[in-house]
Amino acid sequence: MAAETPLIETAALEAALQRFADERDWQRYHTPRNLMLALTGEVGELAEIFQWLTDEEVAQLADDPARFTHLQEEVADVLLYLVRLASVLKLDINAAVRDKLQKNAIKYPAPAADAPAA
Amino acid sequence: MAAETPLIETAALEAALQRFADERDWQRYHTPRNLMLALTGEVGELAEIFQWLTDEEVAQLADDPARFTHLQEEVADVLLYLVRLASVLKLDINAAVRDKLQKNAIKYPAPAADAPAA
Amino acid sequence: MAAETPLIETAALEAALQRFADERDWQRYHTPRNLMLALTGEVGELAEIFQWLTDEEVAQLADDPARFTHLQEEVADVLLYLVRLASVLKLDINAAVRDKLQKNAIKYPAPAADAPAA
Amino acid sequence: MAAETPLIETAALEAALQRFADERDWQRYHTPRNLMLALTGEVGELAEIFQWLTDEEVAQLADDPARFTHLQEEVADVLLYLVRLASVLKLDINAAVRDKLQKNAIKYPAPAADAPAA
Repeated sequence: MAAETPLIETAALEAALQRFADERDWQRYHTPRNLMLALTGEVGELAEIFQWLTDEEVAQLADDPARFTHLQEEVADVLLYLVRLASVLKLDINAAVRDKLQKNAIKYPAPAADAPAA
Repeated sequence: MAAETPLIETAALEAALQRFADERDWQRYHTPRNLMLALTGEVGELAEIFQWLTDEEVAQLADDPARFTHLQEEVADVLLYLVRLASVLKLDINAAVRDKLQKNAIKYPAPAADAPAA
Repeated sequence: MAAETPLIETAALEAALQRFADERDWQRYHTPRNLMLALTGEVGELAEIFQWLTDEEVAQLADDPARFTHLQEEVADVLLYLVRLASVLKLDINAAVRDKLQKNAIKYPAPAADAPAA
Repeated sequence: MAAETPLIETAALEAALQRFADERDWQRYHTPRNLMLALTGEVGELAEIFQWLTDEEVAQLADDPARFTHLQEEVADVLLYLVRLASVLKLDINAAVRDKLQKNAIKYPAPAADAPAA
């Protein structure tokens, strides 16, 4: 049987974050609880971008390079802390995602698209 | 010049999430603001795991399969909504992460580990 | 000079929360960092209520007693942890609120409603 | 029967926040979903204060006036948005808190401190 293709690959990012922490002697700060609080901080910064905008105004963010860059940075910050947290917890991110998607598919079954017409 | 190796690859996951939404006709719910609120909800569930634990107790989560599975699920839920949000925003996740890591490296320069002794 | 009327009074609630913790020997869990994580958890539960609703659907929550009770509970949970956090930090909630409102009034000056016409 | 003493009184603050919004024509921004996102933003700023600190370092925040003022401001910001959200939802904050405390007392009964010895 062929190896399953991963849904997400984070090994290079996890290694880069480990190296970044090592070079600055930041491992001692990177406890799961600290990273959880840092993640919360970044989620707050991302939420701030959307707080007073309508859906239409959000759709237009892509037309404003400065604001879109800011949006990209905040999404990246959330992702960096989340991946770092998972990494510190020695959690297999792809396996976690794959298993959760399978559970979601059971919990929320898709309507049978090709059901025969009555 | 060789193509740069990505730090993170999410294309398969983004496609799986798109298909999951399509099959359930959920695209109309997946506005950025809705996904931001859903992301906040999942971040809350992840935070709850850590709220009353010491660092030592967090380190022991890996020894308890039921609790570690729960931890994996909550990390996955945060990641699924974050990747879906980025996808809906048509944001290049790898580019966002790469650019932010470069900015972080400038903002927090690493001490010169191999500086010659005086 | 007459004593300033408080904007918010929380003394009875702070005492009730202290007694609740004392009776269960929970003070040892109520560190600021633990309470911050618990607050994040409750904020997540509150956000979940709103995540897939339109503004119109949110406005109709008051018409559904079961859902409105759930909303009240989640607002209360956030408030209970926030007041407990402030209390453990020995922070004067009314003074904090009063000072912040004054700063906000300077930062965002109100347009002069009764400015004479030109 | 004597009127029950409130656990928390927020009427003056709710009125001040309403006036603040009215003077700036901000009511149209103060939808529950917008306020929920703004609350998330402020919770993130509060979490950032604690993210890299040990419990001992948190305890010392009170000794540093500038940092303690910053802490007070962030607690106030969370509270202001939470009270404003409750107010816009026409929710009785004291009743919500009182009912939730009663439910918590049932869910987590206190050990009988004065139980007679066997």
